[in-house]
Amino acid sequence: MLKVPQHQVAGHEAGIGKLGPLVDESGRFYKPLQGDERGANEVAFYSSLSTNSGIPEHIQRFFPTFYGTQLVEASDGSGLLPHLVLEDLALGHVNPSIMDIKIGSRTWAPEASEKYIQKCLKKDRESSSLSLGFRISGLQIYRSKELGFWKPGKKAAQKLSTEEVKLVLRRFVSSNTLNDLDLRPDCAFASTVYGGSTGILSQLLELKAWFEDQTIFHLYSCSILVIFEKELALKGKNPGAHIKLIDFAHVYEGQGVIDHNFLGGLCSLIKFISDILTAPSDCRIDISAKADQKNLTADNGVVADHKSHTASE
Amino acid sequence: MLKVPQHQVAGHEAGIGKLGPLVDESGRFYKPLQGDERGANEVAFYSSLSTNSGIPEHIQRFFPTFYGTQLVEASDGSGLLPHLVLEDLALGHVNPSIMDIKIGSRTWAPEASEKYIQKCLKKDRESSSLSLGFRISGLQIYRSKELGFWKPGKKAAQKLSTEEVKLVLRRFVSSNTLNDLDLRPDCAFASTVYGGSTGILSQLLELKAWFEDQTIFHLYSCSILVIFEKELALKGKNPGAHIKLIDFAHVYEGQGVIDHNFLGGLCSLIKFISDILTAPSDCRIDISAKADQKNLTADNGVVADHKSHTASE
Repeated sequence: MLKVPQHQVAGHEAGIGKLGPLVDESGRFYKPLQGDERGANEVAFYSSLSTNSGIPEHIQRFFPTFYGTQLVEASDGSGLLPHLVLEDLALGHVNPSIMDIKIGSRTWAPEASEKYIQKCLKKDRESSSLSLGFRISGLQIYRSKELGFWKPGKKAAQKLSTEEVKLVLRRFVSSNTLNDLDLRPDCAFASTVYGGSTGILSQLLELKAWFEDQTIFHLYSCSILVIFEKELALKGKNPGAHIKLIDFAHVYEGQGVIDHNFLGGLCSLIKFISDILTAPSDCRIDISAKADQKNLTADNGVVADHKSHTASE
Repeated sequence: MLKVPQHQVAGHEAGIGKLGPLVDESGRFYKPLQGDERGANEVAFYSSLSTNSGIPEHIQRFFPTFYGTQLVEASDGSGLLPHLVLEDLALGHVNPSIMDIKIGSRTWAPEASEKYIQKCLKKDRESSSLSLGFRISGLQIYRSKELGFWKPGKKAAQKLSTEEVKLVLRRFVSSNTLNDLDLRPDCAFASTVYGGSTGILSQLLELKAWFEDQTIFHLYSCSILVIFEKELALKGKNPGAHIKLIDFAHVYEGQGVIDHNFLGGLCSLIKFISDILTAPSDCRIDISAKADQKNLTADNGVVADHKSHTASE
């Protein structure tokens, strides 16, 4: 029985009349194949992944497992449609905190059509992509059983200013997110989530080392998903912090050149995360940060306030 | 007595009715101040350089020494004009091989005017900037006393394809550049110019480490100049290979974000140079490389063939 994923933070959402991804109970994620060349591109990319000798094993783990394509009943009720079958990244998680970070100051390839370039360029300029080299496409931060998730609107997330992004990256690993108006994230979980030899920073640095060398792929409009389980961190257990690369509809051949666009954005994100680890208490909150709060809640007028739920529900 | 520099490979050239830089015999380089905010920007940048505590000493050496501004007789005969007074980077060189490499896939800042952005974007897309993260703005390679320099046209240099750039970066450190149609650069000086603990690669890596961390400046349309003296290399002496950053008319404040655009392009250049050192003999020359030759000589119909000259002439 396929159902709508409960922890989607970005991308098209399934619903009545809306085409979006689905999940089953065995841990598979069904992503509708885009009808144009984007769908074909993504299938080709995933198909080549496991056999591509240019991707070392320690990098392969950053990609979701691919189980081929399958015709399934589309979420919008339009009948059988081909879907990519992938690993459900939320499987095994109870209340995952998740960020979807689209990497690169440019989400379009030089080879793309003029129309597509202009459309993306506009979005890159209006979002933080151009200035920061990445944009937060969406996120959810677990607060508590009572309050559920803090989940700002997607549009608001994408347009965060530099100071706002810094704030969100801190809030993501803080314990004091119960009240949306907490202005000083305590970064209580920074060292266990971002830090350490297996933490997020360490994983990002592994990815960076690969991107400094690999000339096989250029990944445009691809995201890094950052996931961890805050309740485990609260209990002093390993919160399972990890990253995954997703969205490969705009992958191009590298043709002997590194993906300097992805790498630049990745280095920018790494610098932000490093700074949090270096100075977790150094959170400059001023008037502009108060304005953030407005931005972060302004998307639909309210902060999404999903009740806590568990994977077994 | 001011005169036209003999080793300029990019930028506006001084001449009859043409405004360009001048040099004197004491080793100073006079760059006409652009009348608009670009001139003011560049003065402000150079003025802040030596006192900026955010730039460590080992990085300061990559910038030309700045001696203030001065009114001097302009090269185009238009009378006294304000000039930036800088260190003449060709001073002490007899027959320097020089590359001017404009770094960044984007030569414009997000804050720039719409008109300027569109103009630059067009140039970035038409040149190798967008694909490689940098473009060779100009170069001269010393061949011999008889043949002088190999100096392809600036327009041709900027539009080199990936394979052509690889070829030029190899030819730059090769001894067999006597004949323009040599298709297999021998990379005879790769290890002494690019390699070693004080070579070009090592200097680029120092710069990279700084750019991974510094959030003070964003340098748009800035170039790395690569210089060495081939005759010294031929004699088995230290060829004095070094890099300098030049052109700061489009410097913006970093505002807490790394210069991911510059860093990405720099990493791309570093990968190309590393590959030459790893496999100096691995020069894939095929039909497209033969086409290069056409491109590289097509700018003015002929390859520039300046006679050798010395600094004391």
